[in-house]
Amino acid sequence: MSQISKEQVLKSLSKVDDPDLKKDLVTLGMIKNLEVGDARISFAVELTTPACPLKELIRSQCEDVIYADFGEAVELSILMTSNVTSIRNNAPLLPGVKNIIAISSGKGGVGKSTVTSNLAVALARSGASVGIIDADIFGPSIPTMFNCEHEQPGIIEKNGKNVIVPIEQYGVKLISIGFLTPPDNAVVWRGPMASSALKQFIGDTEWGELDYLLIDLPPGTSDIHLTLVQTVPVTGAVVVTTPQKVALADAQKAYSMFKQPQINVPVLGIIENMSYFTPEELPNNKYYLFGQNGGKLFAEKNNAPFLGEVPLVQSIRESGDSGYPAVMKDGITADAFNGIAQAVAQQVAMRNAAKEKTKVVEVNV
Amino acid sequence: MSQISKEQVLKSLSKVDDPDLKKDLVTLGMIKNLEVGDARISFAVELTTPACPLKELIRSQCEDVIYADFGEAVELSILMTSNVTSIRNNAPLLPGVKNIIAISSGKGGVGKSTVTSNLAVALARSGASVGIIDADIFGPSIPTMFNCEHEQPGIIEKNGKNVIVPIEQYGVKLISIGFLTPPDNAVVWRGPMASSALKQFIGDTEWGELDYLLIDLPPGTSDIHLTLVQTVPVTGAVVVTTPQKVALADAQKAYSMFKQPQINVPVLGIIENMSYFTPEELPNNKYYLFGQNGGKLFAEKNNAPFLGEVPLVQSIRESGDSGYPAVMKDGITADAFNGIAQAVAQQVAMRNAAKEKTKVVEVNV
Ligand SMILES: Nc1ncnc2c1ncn2[C@@H]1O[C@H](COP(=O)(O)OP(=O)(O)OP(=O)(O)O)[C@@H](O)[C@H]1O
Ligand SMILES: Nc1ncnc2c1ncn2[C@@H]1O[C@H](COP(=O)(O)OP(=O)(O)OP(=O)(O)O)[C@@H](O)[C@H]1O
Ligand SMILES: [Mg+2]
Ligand SMILES: [Mg+2]
Repeated sequence: MSQISKEQVLKSLSKVDDPDLKKDLVTLGMIKNLEVGDARISFAVELTTPACPLKELIRSQCEDVIYADFGEAVELSILMTSNVTSIRNNAPLLPGVKNIIAISSGKGGVGKSTVTSNLAVALARSGASVGIIDADIFGPSIPTMFNCEHEQPGIIEKNGKNVIVPIEQYGVKLISIGFLTPPDNAVVWRGPMASSALKQFIGDTEWGELDYLLIDLPPGTSDIHLTLVQTVPVTGAVVVTTPQKVALADAQKAYSMFKQPQINVPVLGIIENMSYFTPEELPNNKYYLFGQNGGKLFAEKNNAPFLGEVPLVQSIRESGDSGYPAVMKDGITADAFNGIAQAVAQQVAMRNAAKEKTKVVEVNV
Repeated sequence: MSQISKEQVLKSLSKVDDPDLKKDLVTLGMIKNLEVGDARISFAVELTTPACPLKELIRSQCEDVIYADFGEAVELSILMTSNVTSIRNNAPLLPGVKNIIAISSGKGGVGKSTVTSNLAVALARSGASVGIIDADIFGPSIPTMFNCEHEQPGIIEKNGKNVIVPIEQYGVKLISIGFLTPPDNAVVWRGPMASSALKQFIGDTEWGELDYLLIDLPPGTSDIHLTLVQTVPVTGAVVVTTPQKVALADAQKAYSMFKQPQINVPVLGIIENMSYFTPEELPNNKYYLFGQNGGKLFAEKNNAPFLGEVPLVQSIRESGDSGYPAVMKDGITADAFNGIAQAVAQQVAMRNAAKEKTKVVEVNV
């Protein structure tokens, strides 16, 4: 075999497409640190997210084209790395945060906080840097779900301003009103007070560099939702719903809110939670307590990606109450949440590749 | 037997106590239309609610004392009637409404709207006149739960002012933002807009005479809750919770809100919803999906009445989605909701007998 050139390798690799972004790896600039030697090729494939569900597929397609073009004898080493993409360059607020993802629902109690916690931990475990803003000022669940209800965030001075240092748990940075007020007290505030708390969590908190900042929204479509989109451009929204009619009706409202021209936040997809109940000792019994396929049909109707379903499992509720997100314990529920985390990361990468920036909403609704 | 006098009968009946109000029926003025004749006694017992759970007990105690004092031969006729009590006399707003009951939770999705619908229908079926204000402006469920999503309330002129005529379904008067806006549209409003919708539902709606006006609150402790207590004196609040920790934490917040000195709404009691799941074909299996006894312990801890528990039953969800409240179909779920309706009515009567008025909240929070 003659001496291998970098050009030859790149030509070979340009036959491999990223199935999501629908361009080849070379055009996408995903091939890094290419080195060639005598019958030796090494390079890195820089994915758009460490949670990429296509990681192994892309690796094996690279192997296939290289072996086909240079022979099975070539010594090949491929390093799969990632660099989460962003279209938030030079953002005045949260400049170090690559992606802001709102987790919303319309209806209460469908599992927004459960999904947020498990997504965050799944993304962090895949290697991403992740934070959560608990934007539910009146019913904060994040401190309980991360078993850090009694922690208090520090305050540091930065550029002459006091900023809050988020709590860090399971590799995820967290802020919540629950860290700042006594647990039994009601926060009885009108909208502007709640909005200013959210603004502090965004602007006066030391987030540093993050790949994904998840926003656990309260139910509804009111002050907090408006303040969020008016304060920072949101990369995309995830809509969580359960399958029944009353939940879908409210999910539709949340969906419509994001689609309103003056709000215009891309919807990354739909998650169906509490899809069916399976008792531990009767794993073949599925009780469709809340109806069947409501979330999937909702996604189809709205032409939105369906990101996955999560069954109603007692251990998910227990994990929430005890503060150890279910995704931390291997099993089918962990698989479900990991799959959804990958699907979300994938949608974010695709959305960023499409490149229209989300703007801060200027109108005053 | 000598001629019977009214005084003798009243003396006899004064041995019977209303177990809730802890005074005798005569002192309480509950004996009406007393007539006596030759070996003949007839009177009405006017209860404080048609949903009185002690109706049969009180009737049989009256029979016992009369037969004991006047002999088994006396011809006795007792009519059990009711006249719902109120402390809202001469209220400037809603003068014809005897009792205003807020159904709240803190956490979303615990079953406020389900409880509200079933309570309302149960009270109406017992003979009371009942209305519902759906105060959930962003996620109205009442139109779906009463199968009247496509109805539109009429507008009439009254005293030179346009007023809304509530929809009537299953004997319950209803108003909801869902009757006034297209179902798929999001109502993206800041607090003041939502509050003014609630004020219209209270002040510009033709409620007429009602024994009970139930308010289905949104989750949280914010604008709608403040506007409610600042607009009308609320007779009492019911707190609905599911048994898990994250729900109880928020129920505690709702409870604390009502107890705040400047809000000061009596809590009529706690309802535990989704207590356990029982599959139709395995009626002896109870799955405590959300934990066990959380609501009961919560009531004890707060020294509040426990009004009852409702299991997680697929048919309750189905009834909600199809718009026929579960209480309309005989069975154990109907029994559960009827029992809770009686318990609520009982607490309202006791609260009214205790007589401290709830005031409109004057402070501007
Ligand atoms: N798939 C599931 N299996 C079992 N329990 C679940 C599941 N998803 C959520 N839960 C439980 O249901 C309850 C509601 O979930 P969660 O608090 O995440 O909902 P939410 O949408 O954030 O509610 P809110 O509107 O009040 O913020 C919690 O107790 C949670 O542990
Ligand atoms: N005991 C029950 N058994 C089965 N399903 C129930 C039960 N209680 C409520 N549900 C269902 O659970 C869902 C949530 O109930 P509901 O809408 O009444 O809650 P909510 O507290 O009013 O929610 P929100 O905070 O969004 O207003 C509904 O689909 C309802 O039909
Ligand atoms: Mg939540
Ligand atoms: Mg509701």
